[in-house]
Amino acid sequence: MIRPTENGERYELTSPTEMPKAGGFLWNQRMMIQVTCRGFATAQYMQPEPAKYAYAPNLEAKTFMQPEQNYYAHHPGRFVYVKDEENGEIFSAPYEPVRAKLDRFTFDVGKSDIKWTVEKSGIRVEMGFLLPTDDVAELWSIKVKNISGRKRNLSIYPYFPLGYMSWMNQEAEWNADVGGIVGSCKTPYQKAEDYPKTKFLKDKTYFLCETTPVAWEAKQETFEGEGGLQAPSSLKEEQLSNSDARYETPTAAVQYWADLENNESKEYRFLFGPAYDDAEILDMRKKYLSKMAFARAAKDYENYIQRGSGCLRLETPDKDLDNLVNNWLPRQLYYHGDVNRLTTDPQTRNYLQDNMGMSFIKPEVARKSILTAVGQQEKNGSMPDGILLAKGAVLKYINQIPHTDHCVWLPIALEIYLSETGDYALLDKEVTSMYGDTQTVFERFSRAMDWLLSSNARDDRGLSYIAQGDWCDPMNMVGPKGVGVSGWLTVATAYAVNLWAQICEDANNPSMANKYRTAAKQVNESANEHLWDGDWYARGITDDNVTFGISDDKEGRIWLNPQAWSILGGAASPAQISKMLPQVDKQLSTPYGVVMFGPPYRSMREDVGRVTQKYPGQGENGSVYNHAAAFYAWALYSIGDVDRAYTTLRAMIPGPDPDDLVRRGQLPIFIPNYYRGGHGIENLDRTAGRSSQLFNTGTVSWAYRCFIEGLCGLRGVREGLQVDPKMPSEWQDMRVRREFRGAVFDVRVKRGDVEAVKVVLDGEGLEGNVVKGVQEWRTYVVEVEVPRAKKNGELSNGTK
Amino acid sequence: MIRPTENGERYELTSPTEMPKAGGFLWNQRMMIQVTCRGFATAQYMQPEPAKYAYAPNLEAKTFMQPEQNYYAHHPGRFVYVKDEENGEIFSAPYEPVRAKLDRFTFDVGKSDIKWTVEKSGIRVEMGFLLPTDDVAELWSIKVKNISGRKRNLSIYPYFPLGYMSWMNQEAEWNADVGGIVGSCKTPYQKAEDYPKTKFLKDKTYFLCETTPVAWEAKQETFEGEGGLQAPSSLKEEQLSNSDARYETPTAAVQYWADLENNESKEYRFLFGPAYDDAEILDMRKKYLSKMAFARAAKDYENYIQRGSGCLRLETPDKDLDNLVNNWLPRQLYYHGDVNRLTTDPQTRNYLQDNMGMSFIKPEVARKSILTAVGQQEKNGSMPDGILLAKGAVLKYINQIPHTDHCVWLPIALEIYLSETGDYALLDKEVTSMYGDTQTVFERFSRAMDWLLSSNARDDRGLSYIAQGDWCDPMNMVGPKGVGVSGWLTVATAYAVNLWAQICEDANNPSMANKYRTAAKQVNESANEHLWDGDWYARGITDDNVTFGISDDKEGRIWLNPQAWSILGGAASPAQISKMLPQVDKQLSTPYGVVMFGPPYRSMREDVGRVTQKYPGQGENGSVYNHAAAFYAWALYSIGDVDRAYTTLRAMIPGPDPDDLVRRGQLPIFIPNYYRGGHGIENLDRTAGRSSQLFNTGTVSWAYRCFIEGLCGLRGVREGLQVDPKMPSEWQDMRVRREFRGAVFDVRVKRGDVEAVKVVLDGEGLEGNVVKGVQEWRTYVVEVEVPRAKKNGELSNGTK
Repeated sequence: MIRPTENGERYELTSPTEMPKAGGFLWNQRMMIQVTCRGFATAQYMQPEPAKYAYAPNLEAKTFMQPEQNYYAHHPGRFVYVKDEENGEIFSAPYEPVRAKLDRFTFDVGKSDIKWTVEKSGIRVEMGFLLPTDDVAELWSIKVKNISGRKRNLSIYPYFPLGYMSWMNQEAEWNADVGGIVGSCKTPYQKAEDYPKTKFLKDKTYFLCETTPVAWEAKQETFEGEGGLQAPSSLKEEQLSNSDARYETPTAAVQYWADLENNESKEYRFLFGPAYDDAEILDMRKKYLSKMAFARAAKDYENYIQRGSGCLRLETPDKDLDNLVNNWLPRQLYYHGDVNRLTTDPQTRNYLQDNMGMSFIKPEVARKSILTAVGQQEKNGSMPDGILLAKGAVLKYINQIPHTDHCVWLPIALEIYLSETGDYALLDKEVTSMYGDTQTVFERFSRAMDWLLSSNARDDRGLSYIAQGDWCDPMNMVGPKGVGVSGWLTVATAYAVNLWAQICEDANNPSMANKYRTAAKQVNESANEHLWDGDWYARGITDDNVTFGISDDKEGRIWLNPQAWSILGGAASPAQISKMLPQVDKQLSTPYGVVMFGPPYRSMREDVGRVTQKYPGQGENGSVYNHAAAFYAWALYSIGDVDRAYTTLRAMIPGPDPDDLVRRGQLPIFIPNYYRGGHGIENLDRTAGRSSQLFNTGTVSWAYRCFIEGLCGLRGVREGLQVDPKMPSEWQDMRVRREFRGAVFDVRVKRGDVEAVKVVLDGEGLEGNVVKGVQEWRTYVVEVEVPRAKKNGELSNGTK
Repeated sequence: MIRPTENGERYELTSPTEMPKAGGFLWNQRMMIQVTCRGFATAQYMQPEPAKYAYAPNLEAKTFMQPEQNYYAHHPGRFVYVKDEENGEIFSAPYEPVRAKLDRFTFDVGKSDIKWTVEKSGIRVEMGFLLPTDDVAELWSIKVKNISGRKRNLSIYPYFPLGYMSWMNQEAEWNADVGGIVGSCKTPYQKAEDYPKTKFLKDKTYFLCETTPVAWEAKQETFEGEGGLQAPSSLKEEQLSNSDARYETPTAAVQYWADLENNESKEYRFLFGPAYDDAEILDMRKKYLSKMAFARAAKDYENYIQRGSGCLRLETPDKDLDNLVNNWLPRQLYYHGDVNRLTTDPQTRNYLQDNMGMSFIKPEVARKSILTAVGQQEKNGSMPDGILLAKGAVLKYINQIPHTDHCVWLPIALEIYLSETGDYALLDKEVTSMYGDTQTVFERFSRAMDWLLSSNARDDRGLSYIAQGDWCDPMNMVGPKGVGVSGWLTVATAYAVNLWAQICEDANNPSMANKYRTAAKQVNESANEHLWDGDWYARGITDDNVTFGISDDKEGRIWLNPQAWSILGGAASPAQISKMLPQVDKQLSTPYGVVMFGPPYRSMREDVGRVTQKYPGQGENGSVYNHAAAFYAWALYSIGDVDRAYTTLRAMIPGPDPDDLVRRGQLPIFIPNYYRGGHGIENLDRTAGRSSQLFNTGTVSWAYRCFIEGLCGLRGVREGLQVDPKMPSEWQDMRVRREFRGAVFDVRVKRGDVEAVKVVLDGEGLEGNVVKGVQEWRTYVVEVEVPRAKKNGELSNGTK
């Protein structure tokens, strides 16, 4: 079914039908492509707004990346048909569109390439592709080998459908000058003032062939004929008909003859991508379309991906966890910090979190993003709904809806950056905003906190307004009148302000620290006065003064975020925590993780809003929203609840149980934004556990931090690296390699008869558990003994 | 291939592959559906904006109705699979999705119903549907008959895919309460303020079965399995699996067992449509889902369509023309006037023209539309870009682009209405506009003409500004700076103002008539001074003073509209006309009609704009734009060029030559908005002549007028009906039945040795050629002799 290979740096899937939507993704700073094991592909690139070069068969809506992407026969993809010229039989690799039963199938996902090996009737097809590091293009190689033991006469038909390029103008034909099929279109526009924006768009899509084919089709209808995609009529002819498309749906299909002796093979290379004109296409051909150039590009791209390989290497009893954390999680995190989800207006909270993870990989990226973000701070100290990253970018989709939580993420992102780098000088850096005013980072952060604490953001009771939404953007009707408040945002404000107080203190500003600590305390008092429901915190209070997320509610009764963050922000006392956690276990925990709230809404609740319009258990409506779960794990680590924390994080990884893999339907190479929660946790339905397949999620920075600073307990403090591992109680030992401030820490953790963590550094006992004065380039050997596990479920603070 | 049946009221197509996009359409005031012979369907209904109940397989863009609609395997459609239980063989009716080679195929398009008869391996499937008159729903019947001569065991699987209903929420399941599969979704919205707009939308789609099936599938993926649409895996099982869809792509497929003796048949009925809730679905079931209710609905709907059967019945030597004019053209015209293209903001020029055609069918509709239009007149006398027809409607798409020609269409629409009705009292009716001011229709029209003649609309030279476009909306960069002018609009202004002058005169206001005639004359003088290029009129002069549409141009050299309208408006002298027409013949005439301009643009000309981004020969870029051609024909009739006029109009009808039918790819049941013109008329390419398949077009009112008032020469004047037939020179006689002001005129036209038209009314010679004092309910028998045809090509005014 699925096997990790090459020490977890690759995964292989051995069937195209067990997990039909499973796939992988590659990206560079200008593009992204997600492919499924069956050969469907979704690619986009920036020019500067997201654009496509292979299209759906109809006029598709422009929208944000959707979870649970739907596939259908004519979905864009990359395919190759193989015909046996002796008997006319055809099959296609990797599987679509023919869907013939294959003798062998391997979908092989590496960190920097994706490959298939398919065998059918004595023919092996190896397909694979990679991306260049700095250009928008796909580099495909297709190798066909005769393993049948006899001579074979084949026709090979790579088929890269272009789809419905544009209603304004579209055509395609073989272009001998560039050596490939070139589709051309005009990006539609109607207003004259929009023309300059569309004028220089790359409206051509090329499919370049290293070797000139025998024949081709550039018109979809001619390629398919009456046979359709499963048995294209054009393949019944000796040769493709060299059709062109003239305001007809374009396609790119070519034909090669391959007469192969036994064990003989032929290899073909293709380049697929967008371009402005033929000159650019020719440049791309020269640059990439040869065996040597492919090899060089592969090496370059591998290096590029390698640069995001993270700062942590685990060897634990949990090999699946090791694989995820060592190989895939930093890669996903790197993707986020590298390309900002391929939007020009990331949501402010996403932007900060996606980039804060870069503190562990490329701290300069995190640093720059903090400066960019506060450079767009509003005059009143608040933060906008999105951060504009390109000239002419505008706030789109959800960023047009007022949300109130963006300031909260500033100290959260900053804390990680400072922990990892100790770069407190950043606080003194002056930033001139888009409005022209100049202030230091310190001042800007203080003003953001002041705004959160001000009457702009809080009501008379000291609770934080929600407007049309806050984090996990599920609700739009709680507070549109400017009255309703968010329980989560209230305790999150305390968390943010406390973090900022700590930073003030670490930055030798105790009076400011004191001021913010006092303010946070007041916030928490307000939360406890108005939001504590007896066993947990409410989610909010609506414009019409209805408190929700409480025990009286039949749906949306308990929400994870107010509980997790009340722990982090200090609102919840140990006594409250000990009431809260069993309720989370009971009401929110599923085999696929902790759902964001429960039970899911089954119909509209008009004072809560949008979340209740989602399908129950899907999207934001009571799913296992991993981002929320990651913060819950972080909160659990903060109180030493190591087993609940580990269980929560571990649920993010599909498998290794085959049933679990099939149910989730995803390779364990990324954490999706959600797994379906089903209709409720008591009666998990057919689709519970299914992956959204969407790898854009703020989860990853936080999950990675949980592993580094929680599980491994290797957390930066101003003076150095604090060592405080938090292994799950069943584990006896683990080994960790951690890069930190230019040094390497080789850490072995085992249980011992100790009362507290005992650290031996380079053979010598360490006073306390902070390695101070970390030197670049040096490798530290750290031996750690941790206390033997307490009785399962007992927390370090004594609660259960 | 194609045969007209039942006196041209039905057409049959006998192959699903020769003309794969050929189809028919049905509508009522709340919905429209276009189906192809192969079973694909595009349906929309108003709530009040256009909405769907069967969706594409992906998230589709919301856009205006596109020409040359593209189809692909998962395009929405209505299908039935048939499986032989003895050998497992399947086929589908009408043809898609299996595409099995059929033994017999008939696609039978009537004016009020659409049917198929399909035979394969001894099984006959008859499918057909109709619409209710007042509700949004499709009434489908499927009859399966064993004609194989032996007993057969079949499974019958109607398959009505629902598609990707919504990214927010979608599901489907069998609902026993209503007796069908019900898909549910939530129309997506993001802003809280949009919720009230979406809250009461009909977010359910039902597929109701009169007879409870054996089993069903409501999940697309389960229905298809790995077999795909051509051989669904679920059909390989004994029974469908009763799958539900839970945030998965919904579908509606059901299974019946049919054990049929020879010649035995079973008939099934289904109801397909949108609803708000189960109660509404149940109501629809009760109202429509029975044999009797189907029969009643069919009768009602037939009556409804019959009400639009027009005022003209032809018997001419041209049977194809007779069929179009007697049956299909008034039906298309009725569609336009009845539903305004199913938009809530029709373009003003479309609205006026679509409704003016109703003067021939239901004059009260035309009257109301004139009042509605002038009720939205701007304060300065100009007309807005679109007419808002529903509460909350806004101007969308092209209506957001400033166009300058809308006032021109007012007197054009009014003239037809007055000719047909003699209802000059309308001129005195007071209309209070949306701005609150009250004026008579006469005043409003005068102010619209004054605006056209004012310095708001014309430059110092007396030429009319074009802004971002005028009629046939092809150009957006000629005059965005407010400087560029339109050659067409200049001569069209003269036409409009002259029409208004004539109406003033007919309304006994000679001084106003005189004023406007003088103004029109000045306009024409300006046109002749600045736009006459030697052999034809230029299309315009850009912001940067570049005159285009002239002999020096390589592309867009000569445009049809300035020529046609200079004849109508009086700018062109007989000498000029005699230069112009041969150039139109030479440069613009194709076997598929007269192209709107030539040669088409092959690349962007930045001072002309959008039209040049279209595919050459397609859309507005040098296609046979029938609307423009219809006005050309009207101009030709006005100068007695009967043969050119007939040829121009005749080219709008596909066939009967099989090659022509296949090339155009359309049944002769409507006039499409364009036929492709190809890359140029000298070297017509592969796609020239192809129908856009788009039946929304201002062509129809005008073409119908050409037949009534031009070809038949039966035109209303204030005092009665003028008789002046203009048969093509090859015709010797024709017979016409014309309804006019409540009377019927039975007119026989033949050639005779007369110098001028000679009219015998009810057996007595008529002085002149106007039948005066027309009495309602009376039938007039009119015998007309017209002069023998002159030498081919010689015009009545002596030019060639």
